[in-house]
Amino acid sequence: MKIAEPTLVLNKDICLKNVERMVAKAKYHNLTFRPHFKTHQSHQIGRWFREYGVDKITVSSLKMAEYFAEDQWGDITVAFPANILEIDRINQLAGKIQLNLIVESIEVARLLQRKLQHTIGIFLTVDVGYHRTGIASNDYSKIDAILQFVDIADQLDFKGFLTHAGHSYSSKGIDEIRAVHESSLTALEALRKNYVSKYPNLIISTGDTPTCSVMEDFTGVDEIRPGNFVFYDLTQLEIGACREEDIAVAMACPVVAKHQDRMELIIYGGGVHFSKDRLEVEGKTSFGKPVRLTEHSWELAYHEVNYVSKLSQEHGTLKVEPEVFDEYQVGDLIGILPVHSCMTANLMKGYYLFDGSVFDRL
Amino acid sequence: MKIAEPTLVLNKDICLKNVERMVAKAKYHNLTFRPHFKTHQSHQIGRWFREYGVDKITVSSLKMAEYFAEDQWGDITVAFPANILEIDRINQLAGKIQLNLIVESIEVARLLQRKLQHTIGIFLTVDVGYHRTGIASNDYSKIDAILQFVDIADQLDFKGFLTHAGHSYSSKGIDEIRAVHESSLTALEALRKNYVSKYPNLIISTGDTPTCSVMEDFTGVDEIRPGNFVFYDLTQLEIGACREEDIAVAMACPVVAKHQDRMELIIYGGGVHFSKDRLEVEGKTSFGKPVRLTEHSWELAYHEVNYVSKLSQEHGTLKVEPEVFDEYQVGDLIGILPVHSCMTANLMKGYYLFDGSVFDRL
Repeated sequence: MKIAEPTLVLNKDICLKNVERMVAKAKYHNLTFRPHFKTHQSHQIGRWFREYGVDKITVSSLKMAEYFAEDQWGDITVAFPANILEIDRINQLAGKIQLNLIVESIEVARLLQRKLQHTIGIFLTVDVGYHRTGIASNDYSKIDAILQFVDIADQLDFKGFLTHAGHSYSSKGIDEIRAVHESSLTALEALRKNYVSKYPNLIISTGDTPTCSVMEDFTGVDEIRPGNFVFYDLTQLEIGACREEDIAVAMACPVVAKHQDRMELIIYGGGVHFSKDRLEVEGKTSFGKPVRLTEHSWELAYHEVNYVSKLSQEHGTLKVEPEVFDEYQVGDLIGILPVHSCMTANLMKGYYLFDGSVFDRL
Repeated sequence: MKIAEPTLVLNKDICLKNVERMVAKAKYHNLTFRPHFKTHQSHQIGRWFREYGVDKITVSSLKMAEYFAEDQWGDITVAFPANILEIDRINQLAGKIQLNLIVESIEVARLLQRKLQHTIGIFLTVDVGYHRTGIASNDYSKIDAILQFVDIADQLDFKGFLTHAGHSYSSKGIDEIRAVHESSLTALEALRKNYVSKYPNLIISTGDTPTCSVMEDFTGVDEIRPGNFVFYDLTQLEIGACREEDIAVAMACPVVAKHQDRMELIIYGGGVHFSKDRLEVEGKTSFGKPVRLTEHSWELAYHEVNYVSKLSQEHGTLKVEPEVFDEYQVGDLIGILPVHSCMTANLMKGYYLFDGSVFDRL
């Protein structure tokens, strides 16, 4: 491995297995699979999905939608409240592809209708308990008011209801994930019941990585949009959504100093590489976990008492056991599994594969 | 302001005042001013320093050193433990400019001497209490061993001792900053006493933003390297290193949704824009503070009970008072002062000035 500075390495085999597993699951449950591409933001990785028959995707910004439209993706949902200030870009893109935006107020629906030059798909965002944004899923009077307008708005094609049960991210273990999932399903089922007679083609779109990874009941759901599963990370491991061997990315970091008195390795790899997402595990704050890099991948070689305890802008501090301390010399590379792969990939601008190829991204 | 997505806006007047103040302070105390450019990472902002006579700088990576060398900076210290894996880039750069690297072990000194093709300046990093990295400042046997080698190594030109008293960042108020500063000065003075007769041109280099902003005694210090002061941020405000009106950058964020029941504005502006640095203030976790954007700047218009309470990848949740809630409609822009301007600027890739110009960066 000819790596001299912090580099995000991608294990293609693990990644493909993650994709394949989710494709199979969607198929088994008869769900439309519209993966969220904000995690990898890469044309090349997107093409792996296409090889499995995926032709609809989710992104989190208009810029990302433009980037993937350039690579032949023709049906894209921007799962972020429609930003009316970007109307020029929306119009440009809506002239080329099937663009779906999400709306949660009549004001935005009106502004879109007034300024759109092409028809777009509209999902109403509903809140099933995460309380980030969206209309409360049982606020029928608000939903009715928006739909009444959308029904007569020729540029707005109502597709269905979309939700993100992001509170699954604070789950620990399968029982807590299930509790979130079941309450979402109940809320979504009530919505469907209320609207399906008027809108028989109504799409119910949901599906975050934790629930899509470990749940087996998707009654009443038509479409799932998980994203993080393509790489997974320590957060998903802690939630119980993946195994450590499912994590498909690691950061390769040079060891630049050693402090025997504190059993610390100082690595080149800081907040500008990992982001500062953290994980609170057993009273410790962790920013990553070391793995042993090998020629073609990495080994889950170390106990979890070894962890990244601090991050500055460029420095990382790795607390290790004496055996691990002795294994590394200044100038060696060590692998670090990230706490939040979406944020790390967003900072790193590209992927290094063990066959020597490099994938860039948006 | 023609802004449609999260944009980092820079108030040039505030920024120049911050630069001017630090230049004057260094001059008054007869200190070499070697500002850290990792905060702004911008050629254009670097040139403002040059207009004040600055000709030596600090950076945190070799890539950043290369970037500034391209813009005529000829004396650069990379204040990060020398990464021997980047020896090719080190050699290239050392052939063009006065490059200074920092070393804290004899192993690295030996590797550098063996592989260098040009002479570089060497600072030994000493630890005066931050405990991130560096040799304990009173570990004379270790320092002596390295210096003994450096003295005979023709490619290594010993410049002096460099420290970063980063524990000043956990200070609250001037008394705590002073305590950190005074203990650093004592440790550095002892070092100087021990080595100055053998190395009469010894440089003692220190100076983080908190101490350089509010301390007035720099006895025994030759060079200061603050960086963050160019913009400041909410962290420095909380430490007591600046006033709110000294903060020179704000993020302009579109308001995309409103939730009256929770008094929350949802903004386009998340972890991929701000980073996830946080500030714990009075039991609340804050990711930013709103300001009112005006045509040519922003006003510190809101009480501190208004704050960014959550960040996802692209969403920010802003908790506000009813008056602030009513002031904003979907499609408006609101300004957010960042918690950590270095990390935010690193993510944002450029600066928007109120005269309409845009500065890019590394």
